[in-house]
Amino acid sequence: MAYEEFTIEGRNAVTEAFRSGRTIDKLYVLDGCQDGPVMTIKREAKKQGTLIKYVEKEWLDRISKTGKHQGVIAVAAAYDYAEVEDILQKARDKKEPPFLFLLDNIEDPHNLGAIIRTANLAGAHGVIIPKNHAAGLTATVARTSAGALNYTPVAKVTNLARTIENLKKEGLWFVCADMHGTKMYQLDMRGPIGLVIGSEGEGVSRLVKEKCDMSAAIPMKGDIDSLNASVAAGVLAFEILRQRGESAQK
Amino acid sequence: MAYEEFTIEGRNAVTEAFRSGRTIDKLYVLDGCQDGPVMTIKREAKKQGTLIKYVEKEWLDRISKTGKHQGVIAVAAAYDYAEVEDILQKARDKKEPPFLFLLDNIEDPHNLGAIIRTANLAGAHGVIIPKNHAAGLTATVARTSAGALNYTPVAKVTNLARTIENLKKEGLWFVCADMHGTKMYQLDMRGPIGLVIGSEGEGVSRLVKEKCDMSAAIPMKGDIDSLNASVAAGVLAFEILRQRGESAQK
Repeated sequence: MAYEEFTIEGRNAVTEAFRSGRTIDKLYVLDGCQDGPVMTIKREAKKQGTLIKYVEKEWLDRISKTGKHQGVIAVAAAYDYAEVEDILQKARDKKEPPFLFLLDNIEDPHNLGAIIRTANLAGAHGVIIPKNHAAGLTATVARTSAGALNYTPVAKVTNLARTIENLKKEGLWFVCADMHGTKMYQLDMRGPIGLVIGSEGEGVSRLVKEKCDMSAAIPMKGDIDSLNASVAAGVLAFEILRQRGESAQK
Repeated sequence: MAYEEFTIEGRNAVTEAFRSGRTIDKLYVLDGCQDGPVMTIKREAKKQGTLIKYVEKEWLDRISKTGKHQGVIAVAAAYDYAEVEDILQKARDKKEPPFLFLLDNIEDPHNLGAIIRTANLAGAHGVIIPKNHAAGLTATVARTSAGALNYTPVAKVTNLARTIENLKKEGLWFVCADMHGTKMYQLDMRGPIGLVIGSEGEGVSRLVKEKCDMSAAIPMKGDIDSLNASVAAGVLAFEILRQRGESAQK
């Protein structure tokens, strides 16, 4: 369970956590609570861009480990986030064209962990996730990444579409996974590239898709709709690796 | 939770379930329990090749829904199993060379579900799993297969190595996933084929691997050891589909 070692409870502890600069993925606040200390915490949370969720007392009581949450429980990232620039620098250090994963609202921590694992093994330089509505780097994610979180930097951004725009200025091309797109074997996915993977239910969101240069489909047979998000990410990533002709290196 | 709708509790109910021919994946029996009705149930279980697990009373109490397990809880398959012959017939009906998945002890139901989903979309005709030590078709597997269980037959066999031998007589070739194998792009994986995927921890077991004709590796970069089993299965399966040149059909 993700809340094991990384929740921080109680007004003082949560305030301290924010002030120490620790990355807080999510803040649960008792709905309707408006007193001074809680308002201070909410202000710190907004400054850091932390997702705030307003919940009932019963909910806080249930996830509380200490029984003394005082109306606030913060969920800290199990791992530190990187900056997008760190990821680009990693590509420069390796003298390779950048290869990034961008995850548009992957919510299942098992999928997030498996995709970070795949990113590492496909030779990607890092993973970018949006701040809101997405799974953070919880203990479950760390575990399912099978160690990849120690090597592959993950950056969290406020607006995925804007990040794509900025990275285009750095020369990156963006391809989004889309079952109605062009067959992946017919696309040229060499060079500096960002692979955009959408959520299981809804795929890549419209705003993000519009920023992409290409849409890639995995040619499929069969009766059902779509692959598991982490399997789709894997199939596309290894096709990119194959096209990059880097397959022979290991 | 897998135990929701598919557990059968109590001596009469479990005996009846066996006698009705319902497929029971697993039988939990109170350790040390030797009386007549329980011995009868164990005999039925052995006849059907059901995995028997001996457990403590506390354990049975915990998973019991009714509180009246009487020392026996049976876990029934959420879906009916097919026969290997059904899978081959499906290939004949479609006038395609058989394409099978064989799973060597995949224990995580999420992985099993995702792999059945992948098998469906990669155009495989069915999936074969071993009777013992593997996840059965529980509700979790059904859910993570995203409907694929309604289309893709899954057969359960006593001995995977022997099944491979028998299928070789039908003209199938077998390729096992093995990170020390030949790079998958260098193998010819067209024609009638069985793709053998091992468990996350240990890969394909030695006895099964010895029966395989080829070992296929996914060329990888990166720092960690191996892909998630369902991601590896996906990458290999879609390379087989690509080689089969059937990619263009949909």
